[in-house]
Amino acid sequence: MRYGVIGTGGVGRTIADKLVALGHEVTLGSRTKANEAALAWAEQAGPNGHNGTFAEAAEFGERVVNATAGTVALEALRAAGAERLGGKVLLDLSNPLVFSPEGALTLDPVNTDSVGERIQREFPQARVVKALNTLTAPLMVDPARLPGEHNVFVAGDDAAAKAEVVALLGEFGWPADSVIDLGDISGARALEMTMPFWIRLMQAFGTTEFNYSFKRAQ
Amino acid sequence: MRYGVIGTGGVGRTIADKLVALGHEVTLGSRTKANEAALAWAEQAGPNGHNGTFAEAAEFGERVVNATAGTVALEALRAAGAERLGGKVLLDLSNPLVFSPEGALTLDPVNTDSVGERIQREFPQARVVKALNTLTAPLMVDPARLPGEHNVFVAGDDAAAKAEVVALLGEFGWPADSVIDLGDISGARALEMTMPFWIRLMQAFGTTEFNYSFKRAQ
Repeated sequence: MRYGVIGTGGVGRTIADKLVALGHEVTLGSRTKANEAALAWAEQAGPNGHNGTFAEAAEFGERVVNATAGTVALEALRAAGAERLGGKVLLDLSNPLVFSPEGALTLDPVNTDSVGERIQREFPQARVVKALNTLTAPLMVDPARLPGEHNVFVAGDDAAAKAEVVALLGEFGWPADSVIDLGDISGARALEMTMPFWIRLMQAFGTTEFNYSFKRAQ
Repeated sequence: MRYGVIGTGGVGRTIADKLVALGHEVTLGSRTKANEAALAWAEQAGPNGHNGTFAEAAEFGERVVNATAGTVALEALRAAGAERLGGKVLLDLSNPLVFSPEGALTLDPVNTDSVGERIQREFPQARVVKALNTLTAPLMVDPARLPGEHNVFVAGDDAAAKAEVVALLGEFGWPADSVIDLGDISGARALEMTMPFWIRLMQAFGTTEFNYSFKRAQ
């Protein structure tokens, strides 16, 4: 399948690498076509890895992955173009992290809105699914880095789109029963609001490589 | 030990029951001395269970537990009185949940502040520790209701107060290594902001009886 990955940071490149390794074809999109990270990525990715603008990546992809920072996601997707996102699964990985000069974390938006919801509202023809924002990038595409069973989450308005994302997560190594469906796209708000907790846990554990699992009453 | 429990809802009564069962003496505090829930609780609690006003409960307790709703916690603690809280461990269980008429959840405060932090700022002589707000009440005092190892969290500025709370959690059945220290009282913000996630998980699981456990890189 052809994927457009919007965003050339560590998350975007990690997802793009995994998609190519799985046999998919990827265009990694950046603000400008001359983006050095995207050029370097495409050069080492082999014949199935390309670079382009946000619009070229969105045009290329049968599915689109938003791997930008949540604070710039809407701007990047506007550059990608609503007409190139319509009808496609749009997997949103982003978190709206805002760090103060002193390093304090806040979220924007938060509480009454989320990046996932904003994307779905602004691009009503896109089939937005929020997922994987609760994990460090290496774990997104390789859950076996942690022992035992652990969980990821999906949220979105389009049940068929969520099923496609669950299947993609399966390609990444996530068993179907490890994926917890948190309902409609407003579940993105719940997922993004776990970020301050994630940061504190990272500090407590001394590693970014950790994940949720849940114990339930039997 | 003598405990004052502020708040006569399900959380307060569950904590008070457990403390009495452990051999402690408890005054369950309510806005008015004639509160029927508190009277009924004291009547069935035996000689170590009492009821009183917020101020009487705080005066009675060598330690104080805030089991009010987060939206009214400060008002309740003002009624308890700063002079009756100073120097004491103040275990804050609250969450600032605000439900719209349509049932939508938001938090107030959120993102740049939390109930735990507000309590510590307004009562600087109290030794505030945030804990147990991530769990349904029956699990707070009986972790064995769920199989296997799972986690609770503490946050607070006073390390000795946190150690006292970890010991109390041990009395409740939480092994010391199940308690994750999330740092200073601003960790309360991270903990309270997990509430939308908790609500969505409850909906996905169809039960309130679930809890976090974490998988980490080995």
